[in-house]
Amino acid sequence: MRTVDLVLVGLGNVGRAFVKLAWEKKSLCGERYGLDLRLKAAFNSKGGYLADFSVHSEGLADMPAAPPSVGWKQGLRLADALGNGPPGVLVECTPTDIRTGEPGLAYMTEALGAGWHVAAASKGGLVADLPGLLLLARAKGVSLKYSGATAAALPTLDVGQASLAGTVVSVIEGILTGVTNHILTRMGAGISFDAALKEAQALGIAEPDPSLDVDGWDTACKILLIANSVAGTAFRLSDVARQGIREVRPDDILAARRAGRALKLLGRFERDGSGAGGRIEVGVSALGPDHLLHGISGTNKAIVFVTDTMGTVAVSGGKSDPQGTAASVLKDIINIYR
Amino acid sequence: MRTVDLVLVGLGNVGRAFVKLAWEKKSLCGERYGLDLRLKAAFNSKGGYLADFSVHSEGLADMPAAPPSVGWKQGLRLADALGNGPPGVLVECTPTDIRTGEPGLAYMTEALGAGWHVAAASKGGLVADLPGLLLLARAKGVSLKYSGATAAALPTLDVGQASLAGTVVSVIEGILTGVTNHILTRMGAGISFDAALKEAQALGIAEPDPSLDVDGWDTACKILLIANSVAGTAFRLSDVARQGIREVRPDDILAARRAGRALKLLGRFERDGSGAGGRIEVGVSALGPDHLLHGISGTNKAIVFVTDTMGTVAVSGGKSDPQGTAASVLKDIINIYR
Repeated sequence: MRTVDLVLVGLGNVGRAFVKLAWEKKSLCGERYGLDLRLKAAFNSKGGYLADFSVHSEGLADMPAAPPSVGWKQGLRLADALGNGPPGVLVECTPTDIRTGEPGLAYMTEALGAGWHVAAASKGGLVADLPGLLLLARAKGVSLKYSGATAAALPTLDVGQASLAGTVVSVIEGILTGVTNHILTRMGAGISFDAALKEAQALGIAEPDPSLDVDGWDTACKILLIANSVAGTAFRLSDVARQGIREVRPDDILAARRAGRALKLLGRFERDGSGAGGRIEVGVSALGPDHLLHGISGTNKAIVFVTDTMGTVAVSGGKSDPQGTAASVLKDIINIYR
Repeated sequence: MRTVDLVLVGLGNVGRAFVKLAWEKKSLCGERYGLDLRLKAAFNSKGGYLADFSVHSEGLADMPAAPPSVGWKQGLRLADALGNGPPGVLVECTPTDIRTGEPGLAYMTEALGAGWHVAAASKGGLVADLPGLLLLARAKGVSLKYSGATAAALPTLDVGQASLAGTVVSVIEGILTGVTNHILTRMGAGISFDAALKEAQALGIAEPDPSLDVDGWDTACKILLIANSVAGTAFRLSDVARQGIREVRPDDILAARRAGRALKLLGRFERDGSGAGGRIEVGVSALGPDHLLHGISGTNKAIVFVTDTMGTVAVSGGKSDPQGTAASVLKDIINIYR
């Protein structure tokens, strides 16, 4: 049995779901993978907990993300959390800021620099400087995994990097944001964008500030990370031609449907003939019935890879909720040690 | 750059496609993965070639699988091929014999015993004794990979073992044999089973002896290997309740279609409540339009995994031809060294 120390940063929905899941899966991870997962610390920008996973963490998911609560240490920082023991895995679940990449970028840099692996669920820091983080990870001989930031329970990087190893991927396109697909699906029932958005917010599917999703930023971040990781490109967020779904009207959806088509917000990469470059974009497309993404509705996600020697491979499904995201982080941790 | 010696056994369509592909992908494997692939030998039960990949193997794909031809060594055996150099990867592409598992089982046992990794495309030896081969590989500290035997370019094991690591998989079901799906698709156009089979044979999709495919053995072998690898079961081939497609009539397909359903030959595993056991079967099912496998037609394949914490994940596509199979073997080789 190998002991794996975990440090969690970020105590939002995903962070809390991860604590709960890691506790529930503790014996499975031991029996099936020989890994004894221990949550050494869990904190956010205000402070946090230093915990022995096996004793305290079942209850941690219900603890408030701020004082006062039993065991809370105000001002706890990453350096305290990493401590003096053997390196383990930083679980990065902070809120995404796509302008600065912080606080995720600083946390990941500090952890990798200290010889810790990183399993990231938040996109900001990765979008800000994936090449720099990967370089640092390689220099330190550790892993940087980010399934949680690239459509989470829908396998995207695993398939693109491992299952399609040795191929040249010419096109990647996906429905990568559950919220926007759900809103478009509901608008197909005739309700307006505003009404569908309010409904999604009431259901807890959409954020109070929905602009990251509905303006296409979330899809842009994901297709960017996937393309750069799978196709060897070096796009920056400013390279992504981006269109959201605010301008879509129910009539557009109904008109498309009458023509046998479905409107979907797609993230799309297409390689150009000359090498590692190409075009990357986010926008609404009217897909015909033969398109592999035509039938993907509600909060479901899916991705299609077009290759030279393995044909076209499509993946769909994977839970779009905090538990599904947490499960993708746990998956990354397990695979780091296999 | 790491030199990787390869020994190929089996000079049929897949073996020859592998030689061609490995040659075409030689520079990509060097640049992207730092692997210098060298084909050290290629042989079958009669004899074969000892070759320096970088010099001779482009032409090898066109050489006959028997004497007389330039460089052919009658009676070449695996021990000669493994030679005295550092261990590499045995590429196992022999014909599948599901009764004895030979000759694949003996070749894989000898190679693993000599400290070589194995990437297998043929099912026989794996179906005969996967647990024994995995135990030997573990004892020797080497890898046994078999994507090529488990639906090849359709990622099944990668997704089930790596992308879904940490989950409990309760159901696996798939359209795993391109030939039978193609025949059923053509029968949907109104032609008989016999006519559709003859057509598939004329197109080179079906074998001269089609019984492995049309009687469900091929699907049975694949669902067996996938379930045992992903769900931790220990099924034997005799445990698979198996039905083929010989009895299906065009009228059955048309009647199903009028009811909005599609007839598909499925391999299916369902866990029972009590632990690692469950039911494994191959048979024709009438799938409704909401089923994720409903729209998979022609030689396309697909697989669905139902999990506890990641929801349902479906994978479809992947080329069903010797090049696609060869590409899945190359993928396994690359992943052995990552």
